Amino acid sequence: MAKVKVSTKDTPWPMPVVLVGARVDGRDNFMAVAWVMRMCSEPSLAAVAIGNRQHTLAGIKANGAFSINVPGRTLVAETDACGIVSGRDADKASLFTVFRGELDGAPMIEECPVCFECRLYKTLELPGDTICIGEIVTAYADESCINGGKRMTAPGEPFVLTMPDSDYRPLGGTIAKAWDVGRDTVARISKGR
Amino acid sequence: MAKVKVSTKDTPWPMPVVLVGARVDGRDNFMAVAWVMRMCSEPSLAAVAIGNRQHTLAGIKANGAFSINVPGRTLVAETDACGIVSGRDADKASLFTVFRGELDGAPMIEECPVCFECRLYKTLELPGDTICIGEIVTAYADESCINGGKRMTAPGEPFVLTMPDSDYRPLGGTIAKAWDVGRDTVARISKGR
Repeated sequence: MAKVKVSTKDTPWPMPVVLVGARVDGRDNFMAVAWVMRMCSEPSLAAVAIGNRQHTLAGIKANGAFSINVPGRTLVAETDACGIVSGRDADKASLFTVFRGELDGAPMIEECPVCFECRLYKTLELPGDTICIGEIVTAYADESCINGGKRMTAPGEPFVLTMPDSDYRPLGGTIAKAWDVGRDTVARISKGR
Repeated sequence: MAKVKVSTKDTPWPMPVVLVGARVDGRDNFMAVAWVMRMCSEPSLAAVAIGNRQHTLAGIKANGAFSINVPGRTLVAETDACGIVSGRDADKASLFTVFRGELDGAPMIEECPVCFECRLYKTLELPGDTICIGEIVTAYADESCINGGKRMTAPGEPFVLTMPDSDYRPLGGTIAKAWDVGRDTVARISKGR
């Protein structure tokens, strides 16, 4: 199909939505973030892009810590609220039961099935955002998310954000297994066969 | 529910899966990447985390360019293959119809409904990965993805990766609208009301 040039501002892949926790001016605060990714295995890192004017960013920098909380579908309204209003104007921590691990600057959300407690590892300042890379110090999960030993399953009812339609969408069932469904294709294109 | 400590290595949120294109040693190559995010609006940036030993990384650095291609569900086997085998051992470009924009180092995939052509903006070297941040020079979409003017809709049948179950999963229908479903919650927690 013929390609046409489109806006470079949209994000054409489904985005996870997480709640980033920080302690700002002595109060716990949570912000919805869709620009998030894991990176590096050793140490285990995760990055969030936070707008340079965001209330949350000041807290992350001041305390050198933040949390990443993964909401399930039952928290979609609370998650959305944390993306609409600033912590300067509302007490977003009042929406949740807050708990802590070892870092005072990383408040976490009991109602989220999985939470990462992160120590700020590095920041990268860009014109609009600051990339906050955190080392995942401890990962917490509901017992219901544990799948053999210390590994977690994907939280029960995750959802993603698609743009520019601004839809929160759930996941369907498995269509294929990763590192598996492509094996026949690999055999076909591999050299020396 | 009581929280238990789990591995810090897993990623508990649904991850998009994209195909990163680069020209490596004079040949086009594509790699499946789930560690990807948008960041910054002006300039419009996107980042991918590429393992330091990956064939693709050498090409990105050498040419200062790469592409991000968003596969639909019909490409799940080809996408998976691009995550299993290295470009050192297979001709992954042979799986696709390759096209180019203005950057020779950013081969793109005709069969993907949306493609980003990126100029390397900055790299950040981490112990295991290098974060390659690209400025999105041009975005290309199938005409079927255009939704009013120059904005694209989410590509027809995107899928995500959930770990550690290694499942590719499609998206379900809308459960709520972002920047909307949380409005009542915002009103309830806002100060001075």
